[in-house]
Amino acid sequence: MSQNKKMVDAITSRDADFAQWYTDLCLKAELMDYSDVKGFIIYRPYGYAIWEGIQDDLNRRLKETGHQNVYMPLVIPESLFQKEKDHVEGFAPETAMITTTGVEELTERLIIRPTSETLFCTHYNKIINSYRDLPKLYNQWCSVVRWEKTTRPFLRGKEFLWQEGHTAHANEAEARKETLDILEIYRKLGEELLAIPFITGKKTEREKFAGAIDTYSIEALMHDGQALQSGTTHYFGQDFAKAFDIKFQDENNKLQYVHQTSWGVSTRLIGAVIMVHGDDEGLVLPPYIAPIQIVIIPIQGNKEIVQTATKTLYQELKDAGFRVLVDDTNKSPGWKFSEYEMKGVPIRIEIGPRDLEKNEVTMVTRYNREKQAYPIDKIVKDMPKILKDMHNTLYERAVTFVQANTYQAKTYDEFKDYIQKGGYVAMSIFGDEAEVIIKQDTTASARVLPFDQTLITDICPVTNKKATQTVWFARAY
Amino acid sequence: MSQNKKMVDAITSRDADFAQWYTDLCLKAELMDYSDVKGFIIYRPYGYAIWEGIQDDLNRRLKETGHQNVYMPLVIPESLFQKEKDHVEGFAPETAMITTTGVEELTERLIIRPTSETLFCTHYNKIINSYRDLPKLYNQWCSVVRWEKTTRPFLRGKEFLWQEGHTAHANEAEARKETLDILEIYRKLGEELLAIPFITGKKTEREKFAGAIDTYSIEALMHDGQALQSGTTHYFGQDFAKAFDIKFQDENNKLQYVHQTSWGVSTRLIGAVIMVHGDDEGLVLPPYIAPIQIVIIPIQGNKEIVQTATKTLYQELKDAGFRVLVDDTNKSPGWKFSEYEMKGVPIRIEIGPRDLEKNEVTMVTRYNREKQAYPIDKIVKDMPKILKDMHNTLYERAVTFVQANTYQAKTYDEFKDYIQKGGYVAMSIFGDEAEVIIKQDTTASARVLPFDQTLITDICPVTNKKATQTVWFARAY
Repeated sequence: MSQNKKMVDAITSRDADFAQWYTDLCLKAELMDYSDVKGFIIYRPYGYAIWEGIQDDLNRRLKETGHQNVYMPLVIPESLFQKEKDHVEGFAPETAMITTTGVEELTERLIIRPTSETLFCTHYNKIINSYRDLPKLYNQWCSVVRWEKTTRPFLRGKEFLWQEGHTAHANEAEARKETLDILEIYRKLGEELLAIPFITGKKTEREKFAGAIDTYSIEALMHDGQALQSGTTHYFGQDFAKAFDIKFQDENNKLQYVHQTSWGVSTRLIGAVIMVHGDDEGLVLPPYIAPIQIVIIPIQGNKEIVQTATKTLYQELKDAGFRVLVDDTNKSPGWKFSEYEMKGVPIRIEIGPRDLEKNEVTMVTRYNREKQAYPIDKIVKDMPKILKDMHNTLYERAVTFVQANTYQAKTYDEFKDYIQKGGYVAMSIFGDEAEVIIKQDTTASARVLPFDQTLITDICPVTNKKATQTVWFARAY
Repeated sequence: MSQNKKMVDAITSRDADFAQWYTDLCLKAELMDYSDVKGFIIYRPYGYAIWEGIQDDLNRRLKETGHQNVYMPLVIPESLFQKEKDHVEGFAPETAMITTTGVEELTERLIIRPTSETLFCTHYNKIINSYRDLPKLYNQWCSVVRWEKTTRPFLRGKEFLWQEGHTAHANEAEARKETLDILEIYRKLGEELLAIPFITGKKTEREKFAGAIDTYSIEALMHDGQALQSGTTHYFGQDFAKAFDIKFQDENNKLQYVHQTSWGVSTRLIGAVIMVHGDDEGLVLPPYIAPIQIVIIPIQGNKEIVQTATKTLYQELKDAGFRVLVDDTNKSPGWKFSEYEMKGVPIRIEIGPRDLEKNEVTMVTRYNREKQAYPIDKIVKDMPKILKDMHNTLYERAVTFVQANTYQAKTYDEFKDYIQKGGYVAMSIFGDEAEVIIKQDTTASARVLPFDQTLITDICPVTNKKATQTVWFARAY
């Protein structure tokens, strides 16, 4: 069976089976494919182009704020990995290890990096000597390996692509500020590029990163009402600095340990885009992240008038900086419509001889599948506003969805009802103890402690003890 | 000892000990550092920025010619790796293998990719069905692992960064054309970005890639007279297609095997830039690849007139699109001069109160260390030409060096003399047999069969048999 044939098959309906819809879409929009090793996926051109869009945007934001890219080794000697106690406990079960090569058995096992704190710390130990060397604001784009049991494309894999930032600062205030500044950069990436409203906040003690003092998170709400942790930033304090002896001479010639942070987003963001915006016809890509923003489909493309108009419009849109594609293959228009809907291309322009007589084309916007006749000579001029409005509409639609699916619970019964419906449920609880009970009873987990910690109730509805914190809960990926 | 202090120490002279000069420079220009695992290096921000410059430039060239980026898994099941016989023989000794994880011993060993032909082939087997699916022009940016015994920064490592292109075509002519088109793209990257004149040609049978029918190469000549293979392109014919059963239905409904290519350049190119252009003061970066093109150093930076002029010039140069840095730290001007010479920054602008009275600054060009007074209001306007001229001069200087160090040998004694001097030596030989003798006698290896195969002598000076081919030889890295 040819691949083209597969493309026109419908995918599972989103509301019938969300998990199957997701997998169908990942494959049929040609975002990824499975490899021969379970949990390792192939990022196909269309999926990888979305990741490149995220990289370009985030690189710009990070470079503007003084961050520098580096590349650390793929492997970590096992002994080095074990230097920070909490960190190794968190990651040890998931590590993959090189033990042998074509020429020799290794004397020490090498761990494929699941994250690179230990490598950055070793390097910082060597290159940081004076307050003049600080801050160090390093970032790395790479893949990491974690031996996860259950895997899903983009959401959880044995290998995934990400960026990991690792910074060292002269004092706590500066390091804490970095942790929150990056959280805000991530939030803006969501708002301005992906049209996803991330909620932000601090993780509870149970949910924080192995080795961190504080972990912050951006969380997105998927169409099925489950939350997706989409990125995290960590304040490490001086724990890694002490484990790796990273000291500097301050302005008064006193030796001090540095204060550190780390932070990352991954190809999970692709999963978020799919599950926030997609529909039963396939992917719906917000215009600024779409690898193809506009697809032009000539109708009766053998006619010279159609060919000329297609060529001209393509060139004008391209010269104006839009990412545009012409599909003039001999497949049927209907097949092409389905394909680019599946791929979530924001704008489809159909150029046919009848419309051209009126100096018009047919323009179809993907997210609402609305069709309209459009004057051909206005397209290029209007396109920035068309895309901007579309982006804003998608963002507002997602905001509305979050608002409609966010609840406050004053009793534990209310809480269970809301969790059953799906979405975020805010409740004021007596810390850790309540969190454990809630997880057991409902499978919901604490997503974040919102920055506004106003109590909803004075008493924790779960434990009947005095409420100590307000937490947003949700079932999560 | 602070790092700043280290910076001003001189490096070994280039002509006294070229190898030591190279290592000194790599470390002191802060391009890289060693990690805890021998053969794995840390790409520091300045070194990585050079790699990012190469990536940006090559990505543009590849996307313009219809290539698409993908990402394949880091690991290859051992059984899959063994499917193409020549290929596995070439790479098996160098493979690193994952055999165990934190939770389980693996039932099959996983090879960390030394190159990804087998992964691309498996994927192509799945996604190529019809002539409509061809060509596939895929490329991947990643790191690969090869368990090399002797390693040197950027030149040979257990891990290195590269791009690997893998393409599939409907016929031989198209695949062969791709192999040569990419070779030309690489050559142009050298000429237009790195100011390096690559010589191009075909590899001999002995030197070709494991699994290839033909291998082509770009070779650069280092200051010490040794050649550096800087990139290769391979025509595979249908051997991989047969091993991996990659067939398509042609326009006449006949099943055919695809014709394939692969090609790559790596962080070796950074080594080439260092060894072609560098001098005893450090790195000399051609302007278009330099992460910092212009450094502005205020002299008596506490004076308001200096601060204002510095700020204005910086902003104007930045707005005009140049990569510019101001160093207004409290280090001495002399220290700064040395540092940015070590780092090979193409242009240094010193802004001092005395020059400013005449509306001038002092401009120093790195490659020849020439100083001149320059009217401050002409700098931005003149800068494109200044950089272009500098680029051309560096390129011409390198071309002259290659010409001055390229010889033709008509006797074996002549050949040995020339090889002793360093550089390329062209000789017409009786194939493989002569190549082996030459390697044993002189350690020189066949670099390329130039496209112009005119014979220099009818008889091979080494074997006294009829000469069959003209080969460029050199000692090589």
